[in-house]
Amino acid sequence: MTGSGPGSPLGLHRVLDPAGVLPQAAWRLDASPGLWPDEVRVRVERLNLDAASFRQLRGATGGGAPAMRAEVCRIVAERGKMQNPVTGSGGMLTGVVEEAGADSPLGLAPGDRIATLVSLSLTPLVITDGLAAWDGRSEQVPCQGHAILFGRSIATVLPADLPGPLALAVMDVCGAPALTSRVTSQAAAGRTPPVVAVLGAAGKSGSLSAAAARKAGAGRVIGVVPTEDEAATLRASGLADEVVIADARDPVVLAAAVRGAGGPAAVTVVCVDVPGCEGGAVLATADGGTVIFFSMATSFTAAALGAEGVAADVTLLIGNGYVPGHAALALDLIRCEPGVRGIFEARVSESAPGGRAET
Amino acid sequence: MTGSGPGSPLGLHRVLDPAGVLPQAAWRLDASPGLWPDEVRVRVERLNLDAASFRQLRGATGGGAPAMRAEVCRIVAERGKMQNPVTGSGGMLTGVVEEAGADSPLGLAPGDRIATLVSLSLTPLVITDGLAAWDGRSEQVPCQGHAILFGRSIATVLPADLPGPLALAVMDVCGAPALTSRVTSQAAAGRTPPVVAVLGAAGKSGSLSAAAARKAGAGRVIGVVPTEDEAATLRASGLADEVVIADARDPVVLAAAVRGAGGPAAVTVVCVDVPGCEGGAVLATADGGTVIFFSMATSFTAAALGAEGVAADVTLLIGNGYVPGHAALALDLIRCEPGVRGIFEARVSESAPGGRAET
Repeated sequence: MTGSGPGSPLGLHRVLDPAGVLPQAAWRLDASPGLWPDEVRVRVERLNLDAASFRQLRGATGGGAPAMRAEVCRIVAERGKMQNPVTGSGGMLTGVVEEAGADSPLGLAPGDRIATLVSLSLTPLVITDGLAAWDGRSEQVPCQGHAILFGRSIATVLPADLPGPLALAVMDVCGAPALTSRVTSQAAAGRTPPVVAVLGAAGKSGSLSAAAARKAGAGRVIGVVPTEDEAATLRASGLADEVVIADARDPVVLAAAVRGAGGPAAVTVVCVDVPGCEGGAVLATADGGTVIFFSMATSFTAAALGAEGVAADVTLLIGNGYVPGHAALALDLIRCEPGVRGIFEARVSESAPGGRAET
Repeated sequence: MTGSGPGSPLGLHRVLDPAGVLPQAAWRLDASPGLWPDEVRVRVERLNLDAASFRQLRGATGGGAPAMRAEVCRIVAERGKMQNPVTGSGGMLTGVVEEAGADSPLGLAPGDRIATLVSLSLTPLVITDGLAAWDGRSEQVPCQGHAILFGRSIATVLPADLPGPLALAVMDVCGAPALTSRVTSQAAAGRTPPVVAVLGAAGKSGSLSAAAARKAGAGRVIGVVPTEDEAATLRASGLADEVVIADARDPVVLAAAVRGAGGPAAVTVVCVDVPGCEGGAVLATADGGTVIFFSMATSFTAAALGAEGVAADVTLLIGNGYVPGHAALALDLIRCEPGVRGIFEARVSESAPGGRAET
């Protein structure tokens, strides 16, 4: 099916159910390959499931490859997009442009190898290979099929100087360092360099956010991790001035740990993909400070009522994944900060087929 | 049971399950009447259920008085607090101080008539009258029983110059105008007075927020309401410069309506207690602008991914219910703005026992 009239830049013409909502909020999209004039069709090579979704899928299916494949294929067949019905989240993808509509404003041409910077939760997608090459152990999913980009979607041509899986992993979380950078700069403007605490600092979005905070003028970066293993990784990276081990779900322990390391924080960045970190993040933050929630496991009510419940005058930010220049900023960090690059390369190789299995 | 050692100012000693979390995140609290030294016990007179919780309860039970009473009593008996298990939200209460522990920092004395400014979702509560005086039609619930305040809870003595139910209704939503005022002032500083759109401007938090925005320097206040009835109410109040009718769940219609009224908005305030307003709020907001989500029906992922999905560089704020001075600011608005007072008086009398039933 090809659209005859002009498409909506937001992709509204692809929404099947319920009518009138945006593609992200829709239950089901039309993922047929014919293009509206302002659309682009991508031959998919790899999906990158977001961490909260991957964790939920692994828990719900038991994590075996056949069950993981079947569940992702079932969701995509049913919804026309890879939006985890439990977490609401998606991820992103890489692939090669197959066809660009005559009116597409994205500046892409057939043959371009790209990453999407809009969520899979709103991207029309068809899987044609049953995900046969996926072992179910990695968030990065080799995939054959096609995806559709709208006029207002964001995509970026993959850099030639970085391996594809590495670039994909960086793009997936590039909103986090960009917003961390902006908020840290604002906190630093004309005042004492702020203390920034990053929960989950040895992870992908966490390590990028820690590097971005330091570059944006943080006076002290406190990295919080759950285990001694991750603490060793973070210490070796040099990305944090202080490394503390604490369970981010235990508010009292977390707040005490951050205080002991030089806090409370003027800016607290939540990059932990488990539920229940809202209260601790609030308690670890100084009055007048800001918490940025990047974790898709964040509960809106828990954050709002948790801050109110302890009379904390903190600004609570929902981590908008789009900040102008976010991809360039994150790629710059991965190129210039060996500590970030090391964490990403270890994570990408661990989770790659044939790499060390997560246990 | 009376505590022998010092209580935690956060109320951690009242958490029964699961251990270690804050009272707001707990499944079950110890609501026994004996006081720890820094606690206060209140003889409850009235609960004010939050709008999202009330709507959910009415939908789930059918709305009849016996079923509504039974469901609220069941939740409170099971959890030791009135936290709706579906919405996660609570509300607040009024009552009279019965006993204040020797170490309580709240400055309250037996006999003080107070309102709590922390959520019911973290306040230990016992109901002793089966809510016999509640007709199930109002968010305000006459109630006998007791509640416990912690050292770091917030409560305020009710003003003598305002009727109790009116004051309670104002206190319940006083975080919204305070944060709206702060964000509008920041947007106004040294620049063109900003356009502020309030979704649900004829409601309680919405009318207060509209008044607060104007007072804080908004150049134009756009009030969005769903029906002609509410539009008439809002026009009569004089609180908005422009009144538009639109379904806030329809992003395209909403964004067009706000633009047609002088938008997009620099600040969009979401005071609509139904799910699905995230995308529209983002689309109605100018690049570089801010959306403040006060509705407890807000989905974290829908907001984060919705903004990313349309490449909107907007700041997304979780409406923290605590801002210093929030009660005083809201009470000042209700005293000085006849438009706000009229909306509140109509809402409170409509929903009072013997008043006009909501249909």
